[in-house]
Amino acid sequence: MVPFNLLGKKAAYLNTGAWTKKAIKEAQGLGKVEVVASSEDKNFNYIPKNYTIPQDADYFHITTNNTIYGTEIKNDINSPVPLVADMSSDILSRPVDVSKYAIIYGGAQKNLAPAGVTFVIVKESVLGKVDRYIPTMLNYKTHIDKGSMFNTPPVLPIFAALQTLRWLKKNGGIEEIHKNNVFKARLLYDEIDSNPIFRATIPDENDRSLMNICFVMKTGYEGLEKPFLDYATSQGMIGIKGHRSVGGFRASTYNALPVESVNALIKTMQEFAKQNI
Amino acid sequence: MVPFNLLGKKAAYLNTGAWTKKAIKEAQGLGKVEVVASSEDKNFNYIPKNYTIPQDADYFHITTNNTIYGTEIKNDINSPVPLVADMSSDILSRPVDVSKYAIIYGGAQKNLAPAGVTFVIVKESVLGKVDRYIPTMLNYKTHIDKGSMFNTPPVLPIFAALQTLRWLKKNGGIEEIHKNNVFKARLLYDEIDSNPIFRATIPDENDRSLMNICFVMKTGYEGLEKPFLDYATSQGMIGIKGHRSVGGFRASTYNALPVESVNALIKTMQEFAKQNI
Repeated sequence: MVPFNLLGKKAAYLNTGAWTKKAIKEAQGLGKVEVVASSEDKNFNYIPKNYTIPQDADYFHITTNNTIYGTEIKNDINSPVPLVADMSSDILSRPVDVSKYAIIYGGAQKNLAPAGVTFVIVKESVLGKVDRYIPTMLNYKTHIDKGSMFNTPPVLPIFAALQTLRWLKKNGGIEEIHKNNVFKARLLYDEIDSNPIFRATIPDENDRSLMNICFVMKTGYEGLEKPFLDYATSQGMIGIKGHRSVGGFRASTYNALPVESVNALIKTMQEFAKQNI
Repeated sequence: MVPFNLLGKKAAYLNTGAWTKKAIKEAQGLGKVEVVASSEDKNFNYIPKNYTIPQDADYFHITTNNTIYGTEIKNDINSPVPLVADMSSDILSRPVDVSKYAIIYGGAQKNLAPAGVTFVIVKESVLGKVDRYIPTMLNYKTHIDKGSMFNTPPVLPIFAALQTLRWLKKNGGIEEIHKNNVFKARLLYDEIDSNPIFRATIPDENDRSLMNICFVMKTGYEGLEKPFLDYATSQGMIGIKGHRSVGGFRASTYNALPVESVNALIKTMQEFAKQNI
């Protein structure tokens, strides 16, 4: 939807993983795309810095959190052109200066609601500048004009989103959940960094995601990958296998995950290391 | 999505109401559209007959049930070109010869599941014939190739759909629900046709919807519209106000509505008539 509504002469994209690659591909279908920087050279294990956003781009697109590779842009960057962010997997995880963004969008199914509803925050002043025919359903103006009810709203996920927001507010809001997320992530990254048989896939602490924490076996211990997965499963921990393009393990620590779960994983890692070195 | 995937040189549409008008508008954004027939001349109170579907159209599009006007195409028509049907509001209400259609699509929120999921049945042989760039998410091939899981599936409405299908099967399947729908509709249309103060908005019985039964006050009794709505509300019947473009009343008799509800409305109509003539 972003390129349909915003892409006139050129769009700028930061390439930080699988989701940005998909976003770039879609934009290329509709116009010219400049990839200002990419971390694909190192299997997306860092967030590119020191790139230049072209002044003549219609917008600059980032994906703030990369679920597969475990990197995250954890600050609100400055952009000379309208900034567009896919925040599918870290929305509501930290305070965001919304005024810095032209568009924030995403699927709700990580921190907001069950799958089946999406969210978008649009600065209206960036709309209406392209000549292209925009199908009604893909036009942000349609949804603004109809109060997000152009189509029949998916009431169940929307109600779940309401309940989630109430829960978040009751528990101190974004500031508190952010503290909690930082705390959970620190606990786990500290364990990974100090454990004798595991290592983090993202070297730079600043680039490490608070939502998806990726780690692998250290060199020499690769053979223990499957045994660790089995051991973790026996301890009730399922779904921590990493994505096939990274390997190893991925622990997702979305808002809803309690610190007790993180501690359980840490205990499992420690005990497994003790048994295997 | 239909014109994106199928519209090459020309598409043919049957114009039978608000939904077809929207569909025609979207198709016109992408190519040439021939409206083969329209019932707009009589406020969409009939289904056009004796029209000719052009042999050179890429497809012929119909909306089988028109929720606002209360008409329905209740048989599977023959088309010399691929037949595309929006069955949003009457899917699963009657046996359908699926083999006659190239595409059947719709929103699930009438007879299948709560809002938040859509369905589409595609004959793969009609795809891949247009040159246009199709955004990945709007390309039927994407969803076929990915087993309907290109995006994160909306699990709650899908689960509700599964439960609805189980319920339907347990109660005798489509044949039984169709008999029940015919029975409910006949009860209510019979009352409308025989009641001294109401009349049906669709004159031809063959065109009358089994799902949305529209009626108004007879000439001379127009002043009783508001009082009847109030009386119906007092009897626990809400939401029977007709759409503003038709006026009067609309009783929706989707699969889930029990015959008891139809009888309650009939009783309310009879008692109101008795009190007011």
